[in-house]
Amino acid sequence: MNENFLLNTEISKKLFASVSNLPIIDFHNHLNVSDLQGDRRFSDITELWIAPDPYKHRAMRILGVDEFYITGAADNYKKFLKWMESLPMLVGHPLYIWSQLELKRVFDIDVPLNPDSAEFIWNRTKELLEKSDCSNNRILDKFGIAYSAPCCAIADDVSFFVGKDNLAPSLRGDDMVAPTATHVANLEKATGMEIKTLSQYLEAIKERLDAFDKAGCRFADHALDDGFSYVTDDGNNEMRFLDAIAGREYNEVQLRSCILLFLASEYNKRKWAMQLHIGAHRKTSDRLLQIAGPAGGYAAIGSPCDINSLIALLHDAENSEGGLPRTILFTLNPADSAAMAIITGSFSEDGVAAKVQLGPAWWWCDHAVGIRNVLDMISSYGVLSTFIGMTTDSRSILSFVRHEYFRRILCGWMGDKVASGELPDDFALLEKIAQKLCYENSFELV
Amino acid sequence: MNENFLLNTEISKKLFASVSNLPIIDFHNHLNVSDLQGDRRFSDITELWIAPDPYKHRAMRILGVDEFYITGAADNYKKFLKWMESLPMLVGHPLYIWSQLELKRVFDIDVPLNPDSAEFIWNRTKELLEKSDCSNNRILDKFGIAYSAPCCAIADDVSFFVGKDNLAPSLRGDDMVAPTATHVANLEKATGMEIKTLSQYLEAIKERLDAFDKAGCRFADHALDDGFSYVTDDGNNEMRFLDAIAGREYNEVQLRSCILLFLASEYNKRKWAMQLHIGAHRKTSDRLLQIAGPAGGYAAIGSPCDINSLIALLHDAENSEGGLPRTILFTLNPADSAAMAIITGSFSEDGVAAKVQLGPAWWWCDHAVGIRNVLDMISSYGVLSTFIGMTTDSRSILSFVRHEYFRRILCGWMGDKVASGELPDDFALLEKIAQKLCYENSFELV
Amino acid sequence: MNENFLLNTEISKKLFASVSNLPIIDFHNHLNVSDLQGDRRFSDITELWIAPDPYKHRAMRILGVDEFYITGAADNYKKFLKWMESLPMLVGHPLYIWSQLELKRVFDIDVPLNPDSAEFIWNRTKELLEKSDCSNNRILDKFGIAYSAPCCAIADDVSFFVGKDNLAPSLRGDDMVAPTATHVANLEKATGMEIKTLSQYLEAIKERLDAFDKAGCRFADHALDDGFSYVTDDGNNEMRFLDAIAGREYNEVQLRSCILLFLASEYNKRKWAMQLHIGAHRKTSDRLLQIAGPAGGYAAIGSPCDINSLIALLHDAENSEGGLPRTILFTLNPADSAAMAIITGSFSEDGVAAKVQLGPAWWWCDHAVGIRNVLDMISSYGVLSTFIGMTTDSRSILSFVRHEYFRRILCGWMGDKVASGELPDDFALLEKIAQKLCYENSFELV
Repeated sequence: MNENFLLNTEISKKLFASVSNLPIIDFHNHLNVSDLQGDRRFSDITELWIAPDPYKHRAMRILGVDEFYITGAADNYKKFLKWMESLPMLVGHPLYIWSQLELKRVFDIDVPLNPDSAEFIWNRTKELLEKSDCSNNRILDKFGIAYSAPCCAIADDVSFFVGKDNLAPSLRGDDMVAPTATHVANLEKATGMEIKTLSQYLEAIKERLDAFDKAGCRFADHALDDGFSYVTDDGNNEMRFLDAIAGREYNEVQLRSCILLFLASEYNKRKWAMQLHIGAHRKTSDRLLQIAGPAGGYAAIGSPCDINSLIALLHDAENSEGGLPRTILFTLNPADSAAMAIITGSFSEDGVAAKVQLGPAWWWCDHAVGIRNVLDMISSYGVLSTFIGMTTDSRSILSFVRHEYFRRILCGWMGDKVASGELPDDFALLEKIAQKLCYENSFELV
Repeated sequence: MNENFLLNTEISKKLFASVSNLPIIDFHNHLNVSDLQGDRRFSDITELWIAPDPYKHRAMRILGVDEFYITGAADNYKKFLKWMESLPMLVGHPLYIWSQLELKRVFDIDVPLNPDSAEFIWNRTKELLEKSDCSNNRILDKFGIAYSAPCCAIADDVSFFVGKDNLAPSLRGDDMVAPTATHVANLEKATGMEIKTLSQYLEAIKERLDAFDKAGCRFADHALDDGFSYVTDDGNNEMRFLDAIAGREYNEVQLRSCILLFLASEYNKRKWAMQLHIGAHRKTSDRLLQIAGPAGGYAAIGSPCDINSLIALLHDAENSEGGLPRTILFTLNPADSAAMAIITGSFSEDGVAAKVQLGPAWWWCDHAVGIRNVLDMISSYGVLSTFIGMTTDSRSILSFVRHEYFRRILCGWMGDKVASGELPDDFALLEKIAQKLCYENSFELV
Repeated sequence: MNENFLLNTEISKKLFASVSNLPIIDFHNHLNVSDLQGDRRFSDITELWIAPDPYKHRAMRILGVDEFYITGAADNYKKFLKWMESLPMLVGHPLYIWSQLELKRVFDIDVPLNPDSAEFIWNRTKELLEKSDCSNNRILDKFGIAYSAPCCAIADDVSFFVGKDNLAPSLRGDDMVAPTATHVANLEKATGMEIKTLSQYLEAIKERLDAFDKAGCRFADHALDDGFSYVTDDGNNEMRFLDAIAGREYNEVQLRSCILLFLASEYNKRKWAMQLHIGAHRKTSDRLLQIAGPAGGYAAIGSPCDINSLIALLHDAENSEGGLPRTILFTLNPADSAAMAIITGSFSEDGVAAKVQLGPAWWWCDHAVGIRNVLDMISSYGVLSTFIGMTTDSRSILSFVRHEYFRRILCGWMGDKVASGELPDDFALLEKIAQKLCYENSFELV
């Protein structure tokens, strides 16, 4: 991997030189909070590189690797060898590139990744992981992270984050919109408040939102999975809440819509941004659920989003007491990307750029094809200079290399557009835009 | 902006030289008819360039510009300055290019567009707009327009168009398919006919269609917005018509389907082409509706079209008394473009090329990415040589520069395809195709 | 057409040299079995080149050619002339390229295809078609076909295929999932079994599956047309089967789902692969149905697939007695391609690569734009090295040139990706991948 990787024009090289050292704002990820708290150490490269990355597990499954070597009882060296065998068969996939970047940026290892280099890599990383600068948090230090926001649920204790200068919680909102007895009990415990009604439930949530706010939270997110539908409140949701916590059947779309709208309004009161992660289809193989757990890397992409529902939610939030928060739309189905990108022009606020906007290429879309598609969509249907840029949404601390990947693709894309005539050959202007997309626009939100 | 803008190969330059001076056929637009009748004059560049273009308003809103400077009480110079400040932040968006072309082709102004050039542009255009060759109609003359068809509603007086050699009305059909008491009253007035029943309503419409035909009309259009559905007539539409004009609730899909089918059949009797504009989602922010009015630039893109409904409409029209007219499909959601492009092979008529066809990149899709997508779709799923080419669908008289934009992108795309081997390196053949797409194919329909 | 057609980089030329002579595995097509059995002869080029190819008929209809010259009473020479006139107007369409390849690879004719060359081509092919090496089967011999699998229905006699070394039946499954009295009678005749109940019906099908298996069958396919929906068995399908064969109305989705699931399970028991051809919209023009018959080239592309139904089918099959077979998903609507490609990671089996995978660009998508889209989708959302590669799905024996077309586009695409940095500049590795996609991966399944 040479220094000009993905940079095929002079202007792309100059642009990358100008953004490559900007601090990273990673406004949404799934880093393990206890690893951060305890500054975890890793005994071998499998524990750091392969085990915490469902994306790699998925790729090995597609190659037909026995589950024994993925999540099974094989020892870490054997698991590592299987991954090294798999890598050459992944050319064309982003994992092939990310894997190289991960070893290079953290361990300064720059050899072809295949079975021939396996032993060297195992030994070299073993040696380095024993050193003091290879703990969980020292590895993170290598990436120049100005802001990182791991997800926490509403009842989680977020006091750890208070006063941290480059760490804040990001609120994962999914349990709030589908209340259960357990969830309510956790919330009662976290707030010391009694929760018997929907109103009390929402009051308790407000108390927790304030606690998150004090801990530095500026982003919440909700998964609007395949089949998402939004309806306007029919006035019967207090009743449904009682059914929900009693474990009885109820109209989930109604209650979810009501709580989601309440939350959007509350987010805006606190000047948080709301992230909507749209279109995952999570229920696939029972076998893999059993083997790999709920986040095991076997989720799929759902049918195109019901745009009418999405816009109705934004519409109702705009007309609500608290108003519509800044909203970032992530779509898993690229067929939705133009429809999502255009919404940026449908809601506005004086002094706020891109009140609603399409976010970066998300999850299975986070590869060169997906990133270029998002850049094309935002520049053609929205306004490129307002784009919030990259976040990893990842569980692995090594995934921060994807900011470098994003920046290279962005600069490469800009260079190509200059060559074709679609962007002006004006370096100062393009540099300004590139810096906004790599740092400034997201910095404004944190 | 140099002469070879978007033309990166020798063949693309030669092709553009061969089509750049062909007359413009703009078969569907929203030019203001009273401006045409009165040959309106413009007191400053804001009045001509910014105020009548909701696309520019939208872009400023996305940038967070205060509404005061967009549609508010700010004076025209301040509004102009805000637009000039906005322009550099629009690199990558088609407005950045169109704006340059608009000033260059009408005022021969060719300077970078940013706050530094603002004062010069304001003064220079002020001076020029006072001259006799800068009225509404003299500006239009600069574009070499052989045919322009502004939209008119069925009850509008179109006598102004009779005998005009390069102007004709295009029938905007949306009010016809959703009858109201007011609309019926207007139609009674326009025809002198009594309208108490659906049959009488359709008879009155026929009379007006004849009047439009005499005024040169050759195109009608209908908006099939997000959620469009078509059903075959169940025989109860006379009753629904009475409900509709009485303001009672009724099944809108049923009545709309019935009238739409009737119209398609009547269009074909008159050898008009039917344009279907598919997939807009118009109801977004109430706040922007209030501020900017119904066509204020905040519409969105709907979910993918129900192809079954669309094909059922074409099917029923083909089997109707009057038959299926030539039909041009415009889609706002690019996810629909392959499905729309392929329909060209599903309906045919001896001697008629592309009886049904995908039209040019429409509205929010009218940029390089969208135009190239349409060219790819038509050449791969349909037949490129039958493509009807560009129309602006615009409210602004300056938008005719988009024909130049289209022609450059078309020629650039053809040159790229020759380089990749997908098009033959046969200039005479490609020139013939390019001329068909820029002029001849649409000329055949007018 | 020169030897480097579509190969614009050195690496693409080297890759093509390495795959161009690999044997062809065509795992799904519609070759006419009686033409194979009788080794049909062709009296002129129209009979071989134009008459059996609905794709060419469609293209002429789009150009407005009179049906008289397409499927009508015109003589074969006149039909041929109309096609030769049409060809130059098809630049940009894959037929323009395929037609050149067809004449070049079978007759060594390499002249521009237009009216000027028509007489020469007519005479030269007439002469050659009289020779012994231009019968149906000798023409097929020219393509180096290692495996070809024409579709047969479950009640068809497939004894012809037994023992053939490069021919096997592929099971066309559509009649099985929509049983009728006629279909059941055919099945009774083919098996000698009595069929009064759904259970007996399924037993008879099993017997035929065994017969197909003995004749070398390794692939079944099902069309999941526009509107496809899958539901889990509600236990009432025995009753629906009786309704179906009695010609009474019944819930078709229920019965179809039940039989489809049964078949998937049976396919896996026999280690067959299941092909799902998703998203065709076949009911378009009654006029063309009348003129051109049910496979007359006027089918369209349906709305995006209901992904929830598709995944539910795979889910239920995985949990069924026989298990989920290897499954190849073909999608007619490119808007579905990412959602289809990602499913490869949602189901897995130890030792099986790409248990479920997106298949090659299908039917109307089988052109450069569509093939590159599939390559982008599989490499970005799936794993390129597991891709099964090309099959023609065609009725015409000349369509085997499309394997060359596919291989050129594949190698060209790989070369472009090396140039952009997305694929490594490692010829040995890329050659291995290319060989897997052109031959090895599909060879493993036959």
